[in-house]
Amino acid sequence: MSLGEFDLIARWFTRPVRRAALGVGDDCALLQPTPGQQLAVSTDTLVEGRHFLSTIEPERLGHKALAVNLSDLAACGAAPLAFTFALTLPRVDEAFLEGLARGMFALADAHDIELVGGDTTGGPLAIGLTVFGEVPPGQALLRSGARPGDRLWVSHPVGGGLGDARLALEVFRGRLALPGEAFERVRARMECPTPRIALGLALRGVATSAIDLSDGLVGDIGHVLARSRVGATVDADALPASEVLAAQPADRRREFGLAGGDDYELLFSAPPAREREVQAAAAQAGCAVTRIGSIDAEPGLRLVDAQGRALRLHLSGYDHFRDA
Amino acid sequence: MSLGEFDLIARWFTRPVRRAALGVGDDCALLQPTPGQQLAVSTDTLVEGRHFLSTIEPERLGHKALAVNLSDLAACGAAPLAFTFALTLPRVDEAFLEGLARGMFALADAHDIELVGGDTTGGPLAIGLTVFGEVPPGQALLRSGARPGDRLWVSHPVGGGLGDARLALEVFRGRLALPGEAFERVRARMECPTPRIALGLALRGVATSAIDLSDGLVGDIGHVLARSRVGATVDADALPASEVLAAQPADRRREFGLAGGDDYELLFSAPPAREREVQAAAAQAGCAVTRIGSIDAEPGLRLVDAQGRALRLHLSGYDHFRDA
Repeated sequence: MSLGEFDLIARWFTRPVRRAALGVGDDCALLQPTPGQQLAVSTDTLVEGRHFLSTIEPERLGHKALAVNLSDLAACGAAPLAFTFALTLPRVDEAFLEGLARGMFALADAHDIELVGGDTTGGPLAIGLTVFGEVPPGQALLRSGARPGDRLWVSHPVGGGLGDARLALEVFRGRLALPGEAFERVRARMECPTPRIALGLALRGVATSAIDLSDGLVGDIGHVLARSRVGATVDADALPASEVLAAQPADRRREFGLAGGDDYELLFSAPPAREREVQAAAAQAGCAVTRIGSIDAEPGLRLVDAQGRALRLHLSGYDHFRDA
Repeated sequence: MSLGEFDLIARWFTRPVRRAALGVGDDCALLQPTPGQQLAVSTDTLVEGRHFLSTIEPERLGHKALAVNLSDLAACGAAPLAFTFALTLPRVDEAFLEGLARGMFALADAHDIELVGGDTTGGPLAIGLTVFGEVPPGQALLRSGARPGDRLWVSHPVGGGLGDARLALEVFRGRLALPGEAFERVRARMECPTPRIALGLALRGVATSAIDLSDGLVGDIGHVLARSRVGATVDADALPASEVLAAQPADRRREFGLAGGDDYELLFSAPPAREREVQAAAAQAGCAVTRIGSIDAEPGLRLVDAQGRALRLHLSGYDHFRDA
């Protein structure tokens, strides 16, 4: 890190550490993990034009960059500890950095975690984060644990659902129009996702598998089915939808709910006997959960409607290369 | 991560983990840190045109991306454990990915560490790594420990020195010319740096401070002086130089040695009484160390020549923004 970069990071992104042994400003950060706990690590990069639009406020961008990484910890049932931050930006822009730091630290404070290291580089705008969390050995929620007979659940805001972020994206792309207030609501879902940390913690020992929805349900569930060596049936009409999405035509509602992308909700499986605990976990976490299907022994994903009739939909997960 | 990206990572960058509890392919990787050890974490991003040129072979790029991150662990005296990998690339290029993976895993294998997580994104070529290491509490080498009277040392290859990477860069820029063999030697120093992990481990309890040289000695030493609240005197003519750099005019030799950048050697301080242990550490690590000056109580950096006369040089550390 050079002197100029050091000044830049020091100004906006250095705060005294409380939990870490050593924070930003040395060659490495030093963390003191709780003895006996496993360390959960995840890394995600956000690139302008792929993961966020140039229209996003810096404060929301700071929030989103940390939120999508925390979402991975949530999907593992890990308690967040700390994060590092690699920023690539075309030029030093104080107002941008101030907003970015404000949004990022507000979410960090809400989860009582701290920034322990960073790197700033000149180049096209991109934000890479690596997050660290802890989980007792054997208690992490994995993609590989789904069993035939398990029920499939998805988290969502109380009164909200999946697919809103995609709806907002299509408005930005000029392919759809929404009234101002409705647009602001779905835009907030796209730009300010809520990582389901509390739900992930409450699902330890209850859920048999979990994944966070970043590329759309149909794409993401494929990872669970492949690693668990099972299949699933999903009722497309059971997907939770916000009032705004529910007002859209049925085809669009299904498409955006099933393959919208950028939802950052948890998709998880649990045995039928644990339904009460699943509901209790959601209540404790302050969010809603909806049962959307079940895990089958037969491989593959079967989409059905409310009457159980097979749906043939042309859907695929969001792919950062194909959709460029 | 989408299906297409998942295939891409799975093909080149997924290998079974031996030490980690869970590797690539779930929402998080799970590491089991040694109880009682501190976890050292560092993150660095390499962007095309800033940290490497388009002329670099993919295999060397894979090596370099991991090497510059391991260099940060070396500067802390940490033993490497694992790393995560965030790749941004404009298009899927199998030959590039194959070479990149080969170079990266060869160095990873040499240090017995493993890739535990990754993220692939479409966009301008950039490689971000986060490395994890372990160090016993209180034994990390910090930038803040230099004391007046300590001697200043720098590591280097046996028969080599600082400044070769800068020499190669100037040839690429067309500002200098070198005979073919000499160019290949300095080019290898630029493209294939050697992280001084073994030296960092051997300096635990011996060195009072350490930093790795990435932005040039004059820039990097400033971090040590600021955090240790001391000054230093450096003999510009004592800097180790390769035969190739030694054959250059004296001004250029001093400039590239003092402020060349991309050296990835360790600059460290140690009390005079520990000189024998410093030399033993270097011998054990298979590299050379040279004494280049000393730490003073008086703030600031004083550059002198072989006769102890003050030098007035216009130098500054390499800055990724200013030198764009």
